[in-house]
Amino acid sequence: MADPRFISARGPYALAELAEAAEAELEAGADGSIRIVDIAPLDAAESNTISFLDNKRYIEAFTKSRAGACVVHPSLADRAPPGMALLLAEQPYQAFTRVVREFYPPPTVEPGIAPSAVIDPDATLGPGCRIDPGAVIGPRCEIGARCHIGANAVVGAGVVIGDDCIIGACASLSHCLVGERVMIYPGVRIGQEGFGFASGPQGHLRMPHVGRVIIHDDVEIGANTTIDRGSSRDTVIGPGCMIDNLVQIAHNVELGKGCVVVSQVGISGSTTLGDFVVCGGQVGFAGHLTIGDGVELAARAGVTRDLEPGRTYGGFPAVPAAQWKRQAAVLARLVKTKGKT
Amino acid sequence: MADPRFISARGPYALAELAEAAEAELEAGADGSIRIVDIAPLDAAESNTISFLDNKRYIEAFTKSRAGACVVHPSLADRAPPGMALLLAEQPYQAFTRVVREFYPPPTVEPGIAPSAVIDPDATLGPGCRIDPGAVIGPRCEIGARCHIGANAVVGAGVVIGDDCIIGACASLSHCLVGERVMIYPGVRIGQEGFGFASGPQGHLRMPHVGRVIIHDDVEIGANTTIDRGSSRDTVIGPGCMIDNLVQIAHNVELGKGCVVVSQVGISGSTTLGDFVVCGGQVGFAGHLTIGDGVELAARAGVTRDLEPGRTYGGFPAVPAAQWKRQAAVLARLVKTKGKT
Amino acid sequence: MADPRFISARGPYALAELAEAAEAELEAGADGSIRIVDIAPLDAAESNTISFLDNKRYIEAFTKSRAGACVVHPSLADRAPPGMALLLAEQPYQAFTRVVREFYPPPTVEPGIAPSAVIDPDATLGPGCRIDPGAVIGPRCEIGARCHIGANAVVGAGVVIGDDCIIGACASLSHCLVGERVMIYPGVRIGQEGFGFASGPQGHLRMPHVGRVIIHDDVEIGANTTIDRGSSRDTVIGPGCMIDNLVQIAHNVELGKGCVVVSQVGISGSTTLGDFVVCGGQVGFAGHLTIGDGVELAARAGVTRDLEPGRTYGGFPAVPAAQWKRQAAVLARLVKTKGKT
Repeated sequence: MADPRFISARGPYALAELAEAAEAELEAGADGSIRIVDIAPLDAAESNTISFLDNKRYIEAFTKSRAGACVVHPSLADRAPPGMALLLAEQPYQAFTRVVREFYPPPTVEPGIAPSAVIDPDATLGPGCRIDPGAVIGPRCEIGARCHIGANAVVGAGVVIGDDCIIGACASLSHCLVGERVMIYPGVRIGQEGFGFASGPQGHLRMPHVGRVIIHDDVEIGANTTIDRGSSRDTVIGPGCMIDNLVQIAHNVELGKGCVVVSQVGISGSTTLGDFVVCGGQVGFAGHLTIGDGVELAARAGVTRDLEPGRTYGGFPAVPAAQWKRQAAVLARLVKTKGKT
Repeated sequence: MADPRFISARGPYALAELAEAAEAELEAGADGSIRIVDIAPLDAAESNTISFLDNKRYIEAFTKSRAGACVVHPSLADRAPPGMALLLAEQPYQAFTRVVREFYPPPTVEPGIAPSAVIDPDATLGPGCRIDPGAVIGPRCEIGARCHIGANAVVGAGVVIGDDCIIGACASLSHCLVGERVMIYPGVRIGQEGFGFASGPQGHLRMPHVGRVIIHDDVEIGANTTIDRGSSRDTVIGPGCMIDNLVQIAHNVELGKGCVVVSQVGISGSTTLGDFVVCGGQVGFAGHLTIGDGVELAARAGVTRDLEPGRTYGGFPAVPAAQWKRQAAVLARLVKTKGKT
Repeated sequence: MADPRFISARGPYALAELAEAAEAELEAGADGSIRIVDIAPLDAAESNTISFLDNKRYIEAFTKSRAGACVVHPSLADRAPPGMALLLAEQPYQAFTRVVREFYPPPTVEPGIAPSAVIDPDATLGPGCRIDPGAVIGPRCEIGARCHIGANAVVGAGVVIGDDCIIGACASLSHCLVGERVMIYPGVRIGQEGFGFASGPQGHLRMPHVGRVIIHDDVEIGANTTIDRGSSRDTVIGPGCMIDNLVQIAHNVELGKGCVVVSQVGISGSTTLGDFVVCGGQVGFAGHLTIGDGVELAARAGVTRDLEPGRTYGGFPAVPAAQWKRQAAVLARLVKTKGKT
């Protein structure tokens, strides 16, 4: 289904090959030799494409789909339309992701330095880098192997970037050390001074920020997200964190391993998230908080105090999810009984 | 009132000419021959300028205004100060917009290609384009006639842009097809990969996104807004949609015709908005929802389920506006009666 | 503690010198001659560095710190560990800010114009400016002395910038007049058209915006923040305002002196803030409001009507803080008593 102007599919693959790549089970009786040429959404799929079902909202689309094959949880196999070959998986989205990566592996970087890129003579580039037009790489930068620096991106003086990183178009980095396999999307701002000043009757006096931003391996940072450098310590993004678009991460914030931060979240200064914390969209955190490992926050939660590990919270101020739901239920009941004026 | 450093007014116009352009009625007895040289806000207007009243908050400013002429609803005509000539209109803001467009018609593009622009030899440009310094246009791009590509904007490989579009400074586009008369403001990010990955004990595995962003005719997209490309389908912005600054539109989202999306709204993946949906500022939508035609959402509403067409909703979780107001009233009453501790 | 790749410390200083710079009192008995080489956070400080305590959350870190010196409020002096020299100050954060500025004074601009910068021949630059690679300065711009225009920043036609300003990488300015000592962070968007159009059955008709953005002296504007120009009047940012990242300021908004606007706040069109208004993160304002001097808004407040000066408000719709807290308390009690189903 990909538009060849932008992306081309590999393949075709025999369905059995895809089952193996997906670590999924080819349903008994299904023909592993059928040729699959591409992926497709359920409602647009044809007999030579593969789709997936992972959300019960789409069961009807599943039952009507003309997809030749589909990745699905075993419990829903009996809802499949006749003639559809199934790949059964306990985690259909994970399995389908592996299928998609067969057709569309991560692009390899075509090396080359655009003539209009401005690379300081005191910067070093690893082998195989691609530097697009208008990119600016400052003095003493160290860029690893096979990095792709997008058009009009700006890498400030002294920044270190590990191997196999992608810096999106028009992004800017300063005062930061970036690990390996990090993807920074277009328009991201990393390393500028944080929002810190001493306020008095004569106005606001800026606090110089002398910390850095440390970004560990395998992190993704979404478009137009902002990550400020630390004041006297560092702002830290742990390995494998996934950060969406338009997120604000203030000075001195630390994220543990594998956190997931959905769009428009704001994390105030000096707040620390443990490992594998998940923040729904538009969540906000006050400053100086400690959020335990594995905490999950419903979208739009407003966090005002430390949170214990391993629990789900919601609401503003954020409370354990069960309590938040009770609040909503009580309020709804009150409106029914007392709101009839 | 415009600063000639930036914008120059056409005119002057006789008031009768402006009445005609505005599709408004020159009040009986008003002198259609008076010359109007510019527009102005009520409190700064002089006898040779025209202003408007469209919000009851400004009635006092209206009664004190020295504007020579004013566009106003007929019901408020009797509040006008002596000597002010009135243009009567049922929709004063619409009528005044037409007046302003007489003085300040949309600028025409002065063709020319800056020497520092980097245009791939495999890109095509229509006649009359203006390409500002540092703009980068990638291979196989097709840019229509009379487009203006702003300074340091980046148009990625294969992107198609229709006639009469404006791409703001420092914006970046990839994996997208753009219609005609589209205005993309500075710093907009279109077409990057969406926030999709399969999470497991070993971490997060990126889902390759092979869809596109389709932007129909007459769309505006505000500064620093982000629109991700679809995963296996497209992200679609319907004709005539108006999108404000710092909005997040995730992968696979579809907007119908003429939607209005105010600043800092977030729309999660695979949610579909019908035609002429209006979203107040800071509204959030969960993913995979269907929002009916003509739905209006109060600012900061948090939408967690499908919404029926033609109604107004507010609150979090969003409920019909009447119910939301009852909730607020009940809560206020409770605080009065029970909160006196 | 600063990484010399990015920032170098001045000094060392005798503690007595720092006490004087800080306008703090060297504690009786402390040795003013000890040499301090740098600042450090409490938990990482060594005997030759100075730290500070300003938040009771960090008292334990204070009592365990190995810092040679520390700025602290007199009331907490007795919690200091043995051997730590104290600088006593009523406002420890202010005093410490002055200390940090001794070690890290605001950087001076190294003059120079990058060969790849594109400066229109009709623009004027004051003495001592630094123009980084890829920056674009349009016709008729007037840039003051000692300004630093970052890489790939875009300054549009006619823009005026006062002395000693910093324009961050990839920022874009148009239709604006900027005062002195203004810091504009990377990716900021200033001066684009506001979100204004007349809607009718035939669609949305753009209202041309002929106002400007006026930014007074000593303002800071955070990364990826957007400030639209006025429609028929100006958008105004008063002297000394501090604006954080990802803030939206719509057309015709006016901020008084010294306002503090934390990240992700949205201010709708034509709303006016008085002097020294403080907005916590993610606050939203409806349009056409008047907010009094000295108003403070708790994070995430949603302001729907005019607010009286000098008070603190919270909640949505925003109410005086005491009332907002009562609401939360009443709701919590109700959940306890009625939510046991």
